[in-house]
Amino acid sequence: MKCIIEKAFVKSHRTTELIAITEQIRQIVQKSGVKNGIVNVFTQHVTTALTINEDDPKLEEDIARFMLKAVPEDDSYAHHHFFRKDGRMAVNAYSHIRASLLGANLTIRLLDGDMVLGGRQNLYLVELDGPQLRGLAVQIMGE
Amino acid sequence: MKCIIEKAFVKSHRTTELIAITEQIRQIVQKSGVKNGIVNVFTQHVTTALTINEDDPKLEEDIARFMLKAVPEDDSYAHHHFFRKDGRMAVNAYSHIRASLLGANLTIRLLDGDMVLGGRQNLYLVELDGPQLRGLAVQIMGE
Amino acid sequence: MKCIIEKAFVKSHRTTELIAITEQIRQIVQKSGVKNGIVNVFTQHVTTALTINEDDPKLEEDIARFMLKAVPEDDSYAHHHFFRKDGRMAVNAYSHIRASLLGANLTIRLLDGDMVLGGRQNLYLVELDGPQLRGLAVQIMGE
Repeated sequence: MKCIIEKAFVKSHRTTELIAITEQIRQIVQKSGVKNGIVNVFTQHVTTALTINEDDPKLEEDIARFMLKAVPEDDSYAHHHFFRKDGRMAVNAYSHIRASLLGANLTIRLLDGDMVLGGRQNLYLVELDGPQLRGLAVQIMGE
Repeated sequence: MKCIIEKAFVKSHRTTELIAITEQIRQIVQKSGVKNGIVNVFTQHVTTALTINEDDPKLEEDIARFMLKAVPEDDSYAHHHFFRKDGRMAVNAYSHIRASLLGANLTIRLLDGDMVLGGRQNLYLVELDGPQLRGLAVQIMGE
Repeated sequence: MKCIIEKAFVKSHRTTELIAITEQIRQIVQKSGVKNGIVNVFTQHVTTALTINEDDPKLEEDIARFMLKAVPEDDSYAHHHFFRKDGRMAVNAYSHIRASLLGANLTIRLLDGDMVLGGRQNLYLVELDGPQLRGLAVQIMGE
């Protein structure tokens, strides 16, 4: 059994956005040479999430807007974040809560060297506190 | 190590409902002959989800009702869905958002050829845009 | 390939709280002797969840408070729970719904015998109907 770990990097450009990562993960899977098994995609960050949904820019906007509304910025939160570079303080508890609602990892089966996804299923990194450069761990287990 | 992929089909009868799939998945696991490992259940659709909760029809209703309320239909959404058969257009962004909130896959451990679940834990397919026939991928890895 | 299942126990002290379990899971992983693979952490209960977020007591409070607000107690629910010991009836549907929103399992990769987590990532058991003694299944697969 092979057990391969690769990293993937994704650059976000907005505070809150869905970024399609299906092709990037597919290429890592194909390069691994594993034919049957699973791929586990895991975000390394506490203000991003991973989700699966339909490949439609309008839906990406709908999901991002919903997260802003479901966990509003103008509520009362205790958590503060100090930026390491300039010591500036920011409240971003809502970014963390949105991340916990969506989840940090996806496990997808591999068959004949490719991910088996439904016809409309697309993998997304959900940026919740961007823009930033984000790292994903992509782990492939199988034979 | 064995790595077996099976499909399971579930027919929903309402727009939004929880459908218990524990026994159906259990039979697939037992048929696979894998004794120790994991089973990964994955929905192929972007308007369904998978969840684990207590086997009580009243709770199934509570969860379905909550999803309707948490992501309301009468909000403003950009995503539209065209039915392939008759070209009719429908807004169902709320179904997609509900799916992302609940998640698309479950990973459950196997011991002595059966899923190890807590006494009250039941696996559910959550239909969010039915009624439809839905396909699940059931992947069993282990020995 | 090894496939090891261990149990972990966590005692909650409040009705709703996040309890850090990173060190407890790390020790189980190290004791297993598995160097490369995955660890799947799974809660056995239908009124708890698992999540990953930043190790900050203030954020733990923010997440707990958000769950209370997102799924309010003073709504109308059908599900009732009878306590086995004294036959007392309680409505705790909101605890179950909160559990489904956050999810019941986490899959984390192992490299060189340790979980690979981002610098701010902490594993949490989310107690949603405590205080209780809770059981987690910790499954380690790999070599």
